[in-house]
Amino acid sequence: MKIDTLALVGAGLIGGSFALALKQAGAVHTVLGVGRSPARLTVARELGLIDRAVDWTEAGQADVILLALPVGETEAVLRQLAPHLKPGAIITDAGSTKMNVVAAAYAALGTRAVDFVPGHPIAGSERSGPGAARADLYRGRRVVLTPQPDTRAEALATVRALWETTGAQVETLDAAQHDRIFAAVSHLPHLAAFALVDDLAARADSELFFRFAASGFRDFTRIAASSPEMWRDIALANRPALLAELDGYIAALLTLRQALNDEDAVALLTMFSRARAAREHWTMET
Amino acid sequence: MKIDTLALVGAGLIGGSFALALKQAGAVHTVLGVGRSPARLTVARELGLIDRAVDWTEAGQADVILLALPVGETEAVLRQLAPHLKPGAIITDAGSTKMNVVAAAYAALGTRAVDFVPGHPIAGSERSGPGAARADLYRGRRVVLTPQPDTRAEALATVRALWETTGAQVETLDAAQHDRIFAAVSHLPHLAAFALVDDLAARADSELFFRFAASGFRDFTRIAASSPEMWRDIALANRPALLAELDGYIAALLTLRQALNDEDAVALLTMFSRARAAREHWTMET
Repeated sequence: MKIDTLALVGAGLIGGSFALALKQAGAVHTVLGVGRSPARLTVARELGLIDRAVDWTEAGQADVILLALPVGETEAVLRQLAPHLKPGAIITDAGSTKMNVVAAAYAALGTRAVDFVPGHPIAGSERSGPGAARADLYRGRRVVLTPQPDTRAEALATVRALWETTGAQVETLDAAQHDRIFAAVSHLPHLAAFALVDDLAARADSELFFRFAASGFRDFTRIAASSPEMWRDIALANRPALLAELDGYIAALLTLRQALNDEDAVALLTMFSRARAAREHWTMET
Repeated sequence: MKIDTLALVGAGLIGGSFALALKQAGAVHTVLGVGRSPARLTVARELGLIDRAVDWTEAGQADVILLALPVGETEAVLRQLAPHLKPGAIITDAGSTKMNVVAAAYAALGTRAVDFVPGHPIAGSERSGPGAARADLYRGRRVVLTPQPDTRAEALATVRALWETTGAQVETLDAAQHDRIFAAVSHLPHLAAFALVDDLAARADSELFFRFAASGFRDFTRIAASSPEMWRDIALANRPALLAELDGYIAALLTLRQALNDEDAVALLTMFSRARAAREHWTMET
């Protein structure tokens, strides 16, 4: 798989790493960057993530256009791009939620929505920005694509091949199923960590508490150092699935609270043992 | 600080590492091991954690006796030891909760409770057992001692000096304050992680969920791989403080749920931003 021109809307960690990997593999000739922040595009060019910054008109002429930006901005960006898309141009994204992105694509692109391939690389970290980009970010990671029934087969095949070129393992899921899964294994843990740290930080004597926090706390709350803006957007974008997960989690905590209140040692041990067995089974598989 | 004989009740990660560090520093001549499992003591001796396994009578003749075992067993062990304690023998422990340990000491030791120094090394990991012990486990870690008003000053000074010899930084706290702090920064995160993993594991299609779990999930749930028995005991031992923390956490999650349900972007961003700032401030201090 080789394309001539890739355009990045958002040349940060996610978009920049995609471009670097494809460049390194010789899978793309030219990488364009487009976006609202000229300063950021200058940095991206200096770091070699893009070859040059362009406007929406020129970005629309690329063979493949990757949206790597907060999911809340998807529809507005697609509306900017829509009038300039060359025939056959393929658009894809890297957002953490997919139902809302699919809806945005149909709303903004109309009949050209068949050229949009919704995607979600399971990579990234608390770090962000062009400076964090690296060619091996996706090596061995999973990338989920959630094509729609009318997604053009060639567009899907191209996006799949490009991700595979970065070293990723590509899987496809139904968009709604994707959102339910990631509400549970990613979005809920982030909210749970934010809530726990905020609950501590709100105390008058929070310094005393943090002083004795150790490695378990460090691991548990690492994701609370993630971008607040990004997670606000993700939470709102995946609201129905995330509300269901939050309800399930609060119910699980209330069950645990009841067992503790009743000094029910058997119930506590059962819950902790099931959790450890599942965690260890998962660790062995990954 | 140099003592002749140290006795370990529990020669696993915590007790074994204490003994190894003191041996390495030349701060102890002989390390004895006592406990219900002869097999485990044999392993501890083969690994050089103890010099020999003894009975309760001989263990009571040691200069310092460290209890490094599940907190729920404290009182029973102290009752075993009490009749055999030589005059001036110092007893200390390494339990994660302190109010219940202090109560157990007064109940089991009577007037000799003045020789008991409650302690809690903030170290350890999901690993446990004699094989995980290492001489540098406590280097740079905090150890909290919670002496009572009538704790003998010399006993406190000896235990403090021994921990400092292992490379730890020793602090003292009121026992109730200790239990409140650790309910918040350690016990609650463990319960929250166990509950989250169990909630996932209970689903018919849990394999599909775990399959897409990534590094954020790995960090958040690492502590769910901890010993179920140990955490059942800790939860029960610190029940009042932990119930209060669970209530606060559930309330924080309900507040977050309300903000998400109301699509209150400002409230979500405020909470996430406060949490991130606190997490980053903490990381910089540690």
